[in-house]
Amino acid sequence: MKKPTIHDIARELNITFSTVARALRNHPGISEATKAAVRQMAEKLNYRQNKLASSLRSGNTYIIGVIVPSLHVSFFSSVVHGIEKVMNENGYSILLYQSNELLQQEIRGIDTFLQSHVDGIISSVTLETEAYSHYEEIKNRNIPLIFFDRAIAALETPAVTIDDYQGGFIATEHLIQQGYRRIVHITAEQSLPIFKERLRGYQDALQRYGIPVQEELILQGQFSLEYGRACVQQLREQGIAFDAVFALEDYTAMGVIQQLLAYGVKIPEETGVIGFANEAFGALVQPGLSTIDQQTVKMGQEAARLFLKQIRDKQGTEGRPPEQIVLAPGLIVRGSSRRMG
Amino acid sequence: MKKPTIHDIARELNITFSTVARALRNHPGISEATKAAVRQMAEKLNYRQNKLASSLRSGNTYIIGVIVPSLHVSFFSSVVHGIEKVMNENGYSILLYQSNELLQQEIRGIDTFLQSHVDGIISSVTLETEAYSHYEEIKNRNIPLIFFDRAIAALETPAVTIDDYQGGFIATEHLIQQGYRRIVHITAEQSLPIFKERLRGYQDALQRYGIPVQEELILQGQFSLEYGRACVQQLREQGIAFDAVFALEDYTAMGVIQQLLAYGVKIPEETGVIGFANEAFGALVQPGLSTIDQQTVKMGQEAARLFLKQIRDKQGTEGRPPEQIVLAPGLIVRGSSRRMG
Repeated sequence: MKKPTIHDIARELNITFSTVARALRNHPGISEATKAAVRQMAEKLNYRQNKLASSLRSGNTYIIGVIVPSLHVSFFSSVVHGIEKVMNENGYSILLYQSNELLQQEIRGIDTFLQSHVDGIISSVTLETEAYSHYEEIKNRNIPLIFFDRAIAALETPAVTIDDYQGGFIATEHLIQQGYRRIVHITAEQSLPIFKERLRGYQDALQRYGIPVQEELILQGQFSLEYGRACVQQLREQGIAFDAVFALEDYTAMGVIQQLLAYGVKIPEETGVIGFANEAFGALVQPGLSTIDQQTVKMGQEAARLFLKQIRDKQGTEGRPPEQIVLAPGLIVRGSSRRMG
Repeated sequence: MKKPTIHDIARELNITFSTVARALRNHPGISEATKAAVRQMAEKLNYRQNKLASSLRSGNTYIIGVIVPSLHVSFFSSVVHGIEKVMNENGYSILLYQSNELLQQEIRGIDTFLQSHVDGIISSVTLETEAYSHYEEIKNRNIPLIFFDRAIAALETPAVTIDDYQGGFIATEHLIQQGYRRIVHITAEQSLPIFKERLRGYQDALQRYGIPVQEELILQGQFSLEYGRACVQQLREQGIAFDAVFALEDYTAMGVIQQLLAYGVKIPEETGVIGFANEAFGALVQPGLSTIDQQTVKMGQEAARLFLKQIRDKQGTEGRPPEQIVLAPGLIVRGSSRRMG
């Protein structure tokens, strides 16, 4: 039996070949009614889309590659959810590559995506990424590249980030307003701008409220649950007094809570804790973990929209600066830091 | 400047073209010393691998597609970690596609992987997957297909699963041994074999210990945290007494705990709770959530090994039944069910 083609569908419905082709890839210019008719006829004729042939004609694969540092972190899987939502509606498929925070893996992921002829790459860089010729290669090939959360400013690429400075500021301000004064900040050894900005927000909030910034209250390390525990142990062993902790991310904050509880410290009465990123577990633990929300789904949706915009505007953006979207962080107050009203 | 090629590296090191090619794709037959020398020379000559050309020669892309129902569930991201570990060591890259538990998305993911010319597909099917012609298409194309956790038995495909019957049995037996007698089981509406097996294990454990199986204690629904809460509310409203709950997965179990605590029920003194899957949050909440461990990383590693085996044995397996690996589940006892000793 001869395999049915797009031409067969077009003939049966008495519409053009290109209308069928666009309907099949869910082109926004085709009405929902036409799309439904095409899909029904395709099913009736037992038509199976030859995506490779269709991509060779159009030069597009309708595949987007997304590089994430770690899928164990719900922040990243939530952003992916937002990207998928918008891209699927626009007829694209999403492939994911996990860099595991390793530069070599990130390079390999980009190679793999280029080899698969993706139409674009959306990425959040690893903690190790300081050189970035692999990202330049994407741009040199004229393939749209969008960053989210962790971007490389020097590359002048469209990006969606949140205002990490503001996030650090409101987290610290909240602790101050709850009456805490000796506020520890746990930050990262890595030089990623997002962590530097959170630290800067912390410092400025203290100064705004007339509280001196003390170096002994700023701890730097490999962030993790274990590191959070270790920080509390270290502060206690060194006899450094503190009444609150703002940790750069939620797992570290969770370690802080566990170690404080192990010492019999009352949370939030004696010591308050706030994290960053609004990981899913923070609503399940007791006390609930206060944190900073990063509008993850919106971040993914905006990243997808920046990609679609870049595809549409392929000509005519020369010389214009790339679009940068900065989302506002939100304060989520739970039991770990609510001791007033 | 002329672009450096594999031939240039081979000439400089005085080894054969094929040795360089295999070293570059990390072939297990090449020594680590040779690989290191090749990598160094490649870097010195500024050689950039043309993977597409190399894949056209070999017919292989060294890309594996992995389909997971949901990356929000740490069970799946842990299995992926195991797959990545073995496959990366063997020179393969892993691309992920998230089906979001939707059959249509799963079909689309397979199309996308076939379009990307992956060397194989490793998948765990969605809750909706009852027809499976899309999986037959992979087999018809002679592309290795491996299932993990959720498999389609009729397809006679190599698979790694855990013994869900045994998991249901030991979870229930543990509750009985802790002195609980009226044990609720929350199961799924879906017909997936894994959930049926857990239910069967629950029923058999009760019978083994001379406890009657009571239909009013078996609840069926869309599993989720919210559904877990709803189950406890429903049992209370209907005046059905119970002293323990075995939920088919951890989020549902967490909902049960939250609602019990909201009613002021003491856990584990008055009511015991156990889940299934060992999600990461279970160790962070208070009380800790007892659960069944599914050896996730090992599951991923074994799935990867089944793939490698299929590649190696491409000839000569005709007529032999496909290899099925069944891992043993492990009991993890935490505060939610430990009331004796």
